[in-house]
Amino acid sequence: MTRIAIVGASGRMGKALIEAIANTEGLELSVATEHPSNPLIGTDAGAVAGVGANGVLIAPSLDQAANDFDVLIDFTRPEPTLAHLAWCAAHGKKIVIGTTGFDDAGKAAIAKAAEQVPVVFAPNMSVGVNLCLKLLDMAARVLGDSVDIEIIEAHHRHKVDAPSGTALRMGEVVADALGRDLKECAVYGREGVTGERNRQAIGFATVRAGDVVGDHTVMFADVGERVEITHKASSRMTFAKGAVRAAGWLQDKQSGLFDMQDVLGLK
Amino acid sequence: MTRIAIVGASGRMGKALIEAIANTEGLELSVATEHPSNPLIGTDAGAVAGVGANGVLIAPSLDQAANDFDVLIDFTRPEPTLAHLAWCAAHGKKIVIGTTGFDDAGKAAIAKAAEQVPVVFAPNMSVGVNLCLKLLDMAARVLGDSVDIEIIEAHHRHKVDAPSGTALRMGEVVADALGRDLKECAVYGREGVTGERNRQAIGFATVRAGDVVGDHTVMFADVGERVEITHKASSRMTFAKGAVRAAGWLQDKQSGLFDMQDVLGLK
Amino acid sequence: MTRIAIVGASGRMGKALIEAIANTEGLELSVATEHPSNPLIGTDAGAVAGVGANGVLIAPSLDQAANDFDVLIDFTRPEPTLAHLAWCAAHGKKIVIGTTGFDDAGKAAIAKAAEQVPVVFAPNMSVGVNLCLKLLDMAARVLGDSVDIEIIEAHHRHKVDAPSGTALRMGEVVADALGRDLKECAVYGREGVTGERNRQAIGFATVRAGDVVGDHTVMFADVGERVEITHKASSRMTFAKGAVRAAGWLQDKQSGLFDMQDVLGLK
Amino acid sequence: MTRIAIVGASGRMGKALIEAIANTEGLELSVATEHPSNPLIGTDAGAVAGVGANGVLIAPSLDQAANDFDVLIDFTRPEPTLAHLAWCAAHGKKIVIGTTGFDDAGKAAIAKAAEQVPVVFAPNMSVGVNLCLKLLDMAARVLGDSVDIEIIEAHHRHKVDAPSGTALRMGEVVADALGRDLKECAVYGREGVTGERNRQAIGFATVRAGDVVGDHTVMFADVGERVEITHKASSRMTFAKGAVRAAGWLQDKQSGLFDMQDVLGLK
Repeated sequence: MTRIAIVGASGRMGKALIEAIANTEGLELSVATEHPSNPLIGTDAGAVAGVGANGVLIAPSLDQAANDFDVLIDFTRPEPTLAHLAWCAAHGKKIVIGTTGFDDAGKAAIAKAAEQVPVVFAPNMSVGVNLCLKLLDMAARVLGDSVDIEIIEAHHRHKVDAPSGTALRMGEVVADALGRDLKECAVYGREGVTGERNRQAIGFATVRAGDVVGDHTVMFADVGERVEITHKASSRMTFAKGAVRAAGWLQDKQSGLFDMQDVLGLK
Repeated sequence: MTRIAIVGASGRMGKALIEAIANTEGLELSVATEHPSNPLIGTDAGAVAGVGANGVLIAPSLDQAANDFDVLIDFTRPEPTLAHLAWCAAHGKKIVIGTTGFDDAGKAAIAKAAEQVPVVFAPNMSVGVNLCLKLLDMAARVLGDSVDIEIIEAHHRHKVDAPSGTALRMGEVVADALGRDLKECAVYGREGVTGERNRQAIGFATVRAGDVVGDHTVMFADVGERVEITHKASSRMTFAKGAVRAAGWLQDKQSGLFDMQDVLGLK
Repeated sequence: MTRIAIVGASGRMGKALIEAIANTEGLELSVATEHPSNPLIGTDAGAVAGVGANGVLIAPSLDQAANDFDVLIDFTRPEPTLAHLAWCAAHGKKIVIGTTGFDDAGKAAIAKAAEQVPVVFAPNMSVGVNLCLKLLDMAARVLGDSVDIEIIEAHHRHKVDAPSGTALRMGEVVADALGRDLKECAVYGREGVTGERNRQAIGFATVRAGDVVGDHTVMFADVGERVEITHKASSRMTFAKGAVRAAGWLQDKQSGLFDMQDVLGLK
Repeated sequence: MTRIAIVGASGRMGKALIEAIANTEGLELSVATEHPSNPLIGTDAGAVAGVGANGVLIAPSLDQAANDFDVLIDFTRPEPTLAHLAWCAAHGKKIVIGTTGFDDAGKAAIAKAAEQVPVVFAPNMSVGVNLCLKLLDMAARVLGDSVDIEIIEAHHRHKVDAPSGTALRMGEVVADALGRDLKECAVYGREGVTGERNRQAIGFATVRAGDVVGDHTVMFADVGERVEITHKASSRMTFAKGAVRAAGWLQDKQSGLFDMQDVLGLK
């Protein structure tokens, strides 16, 4: 049984992580913390997460828990994550980092800590997204230059950038597989007299509507047939499940810096 | 039994019309013509269309056929269509016109002829597209300003304009229903920092890929649910079937200018 | 400003209703109640719903609120709903009932109360679903017997019946429009040598997977084209928004029993 | 330049092959044959295929062409294919076989011939379908038992069996990857009180409608996300293009029996 610690246990991501752990065999929640000022310090972490009381009381720090867990999962913010990372390196604890927004110094600190303890660090923990990136690479190599490639993505009305970072990453993977430079071949909209499609183009069609959590489809279209690879996120549970899978995968690692492609065996 | 004449009988649209007639109860092909220089003059029109010989030999003009049919279907080009129209008006024949590209004089001639004989004239004869325009109007009126409206269309790699005329027409129908001006609220692409979605916007996402004949989806997305109305064309048979339906509908009309909304009872 | 009362204010549906009211112009929450034993009695209803404190404290009953609201929205259970209904009839309050599971006596009580006060009563308050039922009726009448009709629905892995009630209702609407009896023409699965499709059949394809809240597509497919009408639910907010819309619509009604087709002007 | 011979050159598949060759760099049509009784013997094969005259006249047999081509592509019927195969083995010609319906003796003859000349033999030459089978295997291995797997396929109204052979093959690939037996875990329809979904089930949802050439989607659905892999065929050009790709791939092979997974480098 791998014992997991969650920091930020009463936040939305913390609660999703606790629910994901409760639904995974071979893992158990053994430590949960929150900021000392949080009013939920001392309450049952399972009850707070809505998965039933599990006897793990929310603590104000990791300091008393050095013997109580094997892997820390951290989706907080860069500053607290780096503090937790240092603590884990000092106490020989494995760590899964889903936090985003590190500067170069932060990334260097992560790489440094990974020399002592094993670290999974990935900007997008979704198993499905990481799988899709691998499938896209394979599809692009097999279908080659005879197909037209279009990436269609949809997100909720509040998203302020376009296309999504995941859509752009998908475009990069496909462009790399085909020896193209995405900066040169990306098309972000079509209006008026466009002329026939350039076979080298990678088109992006961006939908912003309602409460769509995140849909991505990459279409490879030839004359006679097309292949589509689609990912649809429905909740942050997708990230929680990926992180929990990473935590289980770390069980027999001693040190090193890993990403989700490592965890999923896709390298 | 309504007897139909087809001009341009050996062209791709002519053959599709003959096939559609063969599959429709209550109608029969009785006259088929081609340009006098066409090498297929005198051959069996059904055999040429691939639906089996039907005894209708391809003639060089309508002149000998004044007693042999009830409705003419014409998908040729403006000039020959106007000549056929004049002939029909002179001989009291009903006519369905699927030809596009008329100038103002041509349109006036059609309106004038419709005072004597009944004419169905529509730039897009597809039953499904015309139905969808009506459904879109109704959906927009019921869902109103609380939903985000996005129009996604896909066509083959050879299409030179974007968005498609049908997509723009769909946008106009929706904009009209909501009291918006499509010119002011249309968004044709999204790239970079766009900010949150403007609720009044009508977004267009255009895909150009492979051999897609023509797909259109209009999405009405709220928080909690979305409604989508989709049309997918798979061949020119969609236009042939609409024209044949229009021909049958003309049976009891004496004169007047009609469009597909009339034929389908959607006004 | 229409003033709304919510019963069961701390439940999942109650909180969704309070959020929907907060996002709707012309309506305001003025009364919120819970069972007297509920530990949240006396706390701020907006804070509980996560939309910010709004000064409406959760009360143990409607009894002190007779002058404080115009319309009650009730999604509780049959027994408490009937008690609230009687109270509303006695005090001249309009009511929107989203509760399901009434027996014949309960339904009779609702019809009786509607002679005194206006009542909206609908088993599915979703605006989108009710709109789709109307669109399906219109599409079936226009497309008629030349198209093949297939209904594809998807729900989460925990759903225990198939096809969904909504899918069956969609099938009934289409069958009625075409003069068919759904019991005779429904096909619920295909396996082995089935022979060519019977044109009169209405096919159901049922997907059970993951956490899909509820997707429904009705496909009308001809040779050459197809039309699809799709509804996708993403959360219970779809029901809350419909109920809130019904509450606003009741503003100028004096009495009578209405459903969502009335509210949406689709009759 | 690889020189290709096509047998059955005036049939629908023959014409598609000639068009595919005309659109592929590095290949050229050099021989085209038809049955000696065919009225098109002696006419230009490119003109018949609608791609413009190319100077290759349709011959009544391969006998005069022993020095004129490198690879034969055959999509005829088992008996003539086996005769062509024997001729190719005797004359040292490579061959691509897309014909289906061989008995065991026929398959043995193919294996025997492949000891002398290289043979690509595959029941489905579609590049996209073969790619998808590989993607499905990879996706199933990564996603494992935590996802629900559903296969949705759609074909035209005239198809007489269900699910399609391709859908069943997709199911087998997924079942094999997960150590399941498709016979035991396949579900072909859902009706009535089904209970919650069995996580081991592989569901098939079959749509029969209009003129759909062939759509297949395999959905892997977890809580929080889903991945879908989709193939859509739009014409027999999908098979022609795969066969032409196989012909080019044979260029540097001396002997051996291959399938499309070999051609695509997916083994």
